[in-house]
Amino acid sequence: MEALKAHEAWRGKIEVAARATVTTMEEMAVAYTPGVAEPCKAIAEQPDAAYRYTRKWNTVAVVSDGTAVLGLGDIGPLAGLPVMEGKALLFKAFAGVDAFPIMLDTKDVDEIVRTVRLIAPGFGGINLEDISAPRCFEVERRLQAEVDIPVFHDDQHGTAVVVAAALTNALALTGRQPGDVRAVVNGIGAAGVACAEMLLEMGVADIVMVNRSGIVCDAPGEAQRSLIARTNPRKVAGSLSQALEGADFFLGVSGPNLVTADMVRSMGPDAIVFALANPVPEILPAEALAGGARVVGTGRSDFPNQINNVLAFPGIFRGALDCRARRISRGMKLAAARALASLVPKEQLSETNLLPTALDEGVAMAVAQAVMGAARHEGLARA
Amino acid sequence: MEALKAHEAWRGKIEVAARATVTTMEEMAVAYTPGVAEPCKAIAEQPDAAYRYTRKWNTVAVVSDGTAVLGLGDIGPLAGLPVMEGKALLFKAFAGVDAFPIMLDTKDVDEIVRTVRLIAPGFGGINLEDISAPRCFEVERRLQAEVDIPVFHDDQHGTAVVVAAALTNALALTGRQPGDVRAVVNGIGAAGVACAEMLLEMGVADIVMVNRSGIVCDAPGEAQRSLIARTNPRKVAGSLSQALEGADFFLGVSGPNLVTADMVRSMGPDAIVFALANPVPEILPAEALAGGARVVGTGRSDFPNQINNVLAFPGIFRGALDCRARRISRGMKLAAARALASLVPKEQLSETNLLPTALDEGVAMAVAQAVMGAARHEGLARA
Repeated sequence: MEALKAHEAWRGKIEVAARATVTTMEEMAVAYTPGVAEPCKAIAEQPDAAYRYTRKWNTVAVVSDGTAVLGLGDIGPLAGLPVMEGKALLFKAFAGVDAFPIMLDTKDVDEIVRTVRLIAPGFGGINLEDISAPRCFEVERRLQAEVDIPVFHDDQHGTAVVVAAALTNALALTGRQPGDVRAVVNGIGAAGVACAEMLLEMGVADIVMVNRSGIVCDAPGEAQRSLIARTNPRKVAGSLSQALEGADFFLGVSGPNLVTADMVRSMGPDAIVFALANPVPEILPAEALAGGARVVGTGRSDFPNQINNVLAFPGIFRGALDCRARRISRGMKLAAARALASLVPKEQLSETNLLPTALDEGVAMAVAQAVMGAARHEGLARA
Repeated sequence: MEALKAHEAWRGKIEVAARATVTTMEEMAVAYTPGVAEPCKAIAEQPDAAYRYTRKWNTVAVVSDGTAVLGLGDIGPLAGLPVMEGKALLFKAFAGVDAFPIMLDTKDVDEIVRTVRLIAPGFGGINLEDISAPRCFEVERRLQAEVDIPVFHDDQHGTAVVVAAALTNALALTGRQPGDVRAVVNGIGAAGVACAEMLLEMGVADIVMVNRSGIVCDAPGEAQRSLIARTNPRKVAGSLSQALEGADFFLGVSGPNLVTADMVRSMGPDAIVFALANPVPEILPAEALAGGARVVGTGRSDFPNQINNVLAFPGIFRGALDCRARRISRGMKLAAARALASLVPKEQLSETNLLPTALDEGVAMAVAQAVMGAARHEGLARA
């Protein structure tokens, strides 16, 4: 009820604010007609001038169809609006980005892609949010092919970047390399697929994907099938329990209470358990530790090692906007993960201190710098 | 150059501002996950709750395809952005409305209607802007039929409301009734059509529509043909000069220098001349007065009687949003015009003081009150 009352008091967590004053006719004549004709003409002659004379340079659309909102599922675009306003609030608070919710009254991939393409001119970036799998993969891929501004599905890549950062530090803590790791990813939705792709990028070669029915051998979508073909090198079959035997790393992006202490006990030594289902994780930290896990992370702020997208997306967009990146590449995401990991100095790294917290100052700026550096290195920066 | 430098300094005339703080994990947990699930669930159960828990109640999309921007014409969606940001700025400054530019990369009527319909859930109203005729008529009509929030093409109706207010006071000043007036409207684009429709609503029965080729007998679009069928009762034919002979009221929403002092001289006594072409009117005030006009208005702030949309649209949307009107009816527009006219007390009414200025306090609130009253009267209000 506290949250409901707070939302009623806010009547919106964001608003539009003026950056110019119009208190005299002279000011009106500069900000509006006739003065405004000058920047219009400049942009008509040279489209890049839009980044100089308008807010395009700092503006991101937070686009959702409301089909995969929090743990609530398909509640529709109107009911998803409080989340997208919250996202816009975090964008502003943590990285100064002007983000605006665009709620789509359609679940059709063609319509989503076309609609966002048609409204793209006013934006400098597109953050896709809470669009259910497997549609989210196709929406992102096709949209990025049609617009020249970054398209980023945060449920996929924001999660993957923070998981990669946390795993990097957990491996450092336990003296292992990504190539040594046997990983199990439970959940093959947006986050599961993106995290597994990121693990592959990091050099984790042995990944077993699991879903409700056990170890996954086939999947509905193209993105999922492509991933599966590059996982499970030992050709393991069976249940989640069987997948976990001897594994070094469990990543849960699935549902509550799917893992037991006994299952953790069957994992290898110094096991790393990231149980990200929210609000109830796959296994509670106390149980995982009782089962012998060395490092445990969750999505919750009331346990150590919170693995939270907000560590990633504000800085990633800040960096992409500031260098006018065409898109957000794998290299930029890896750079973001490395930057996040490096924010915890080696001497402060511990089983309960893998990552900075969302409220630590400088997180977004460090991520932004790393993202910009990678964009420049790859020739994706336009400024 | 002053305007260009100012726009470069602003780098956007609007931005997104936070209405909630997220400086602690507790605040994050209320504004974002997990607390945000509560308003989401409330809206999923009862869609109207979106007006209580989000910014929908105060948010207007300023939608343009950039085809009819100022006097610049079809400069495209990107180059039109400075105007739409300016519009959003005026919305906020004059009526506290959160307006956000949506620039459409299409000129196709079907695509415009579909795109705006699909992004409508996040908005409480749609302000169409600078969409060229005759497409603007069909876009507005079809879109309003598909969404349950107000759709308002300001180039049409904002202009018409202010013209109606100015004419009301000009007629009061010269002791005439609308039914006595022979009117000539030069220009049959968005503004010309909407103004003529408004004149008919006011009771002006004798309107002659004129365009570049002279008195209009036929037109490309449905909205224009429908209007023409209800004008020109005396079946006048010929040029603008011929139309003006004996006319009481000239309204120009066309181009520069199309009317001469001699043409004004041929009009009836106490002629009213509103020459709204911008920045160069159809006739300069000094010439019109030399030709014997009694009252002259223009679109410019450097002459008396500025006829400026900004007197209307902020208050019209403020009123429509505050009573959650389904649409903006003719009755609501007429009420806005009457309210605007009544803001100049009878004893202060003069040839050079027909209307309040855009900067006068209380204009938007007076218009909003009148609009709300009319909406309630017509059963169009939902709050």
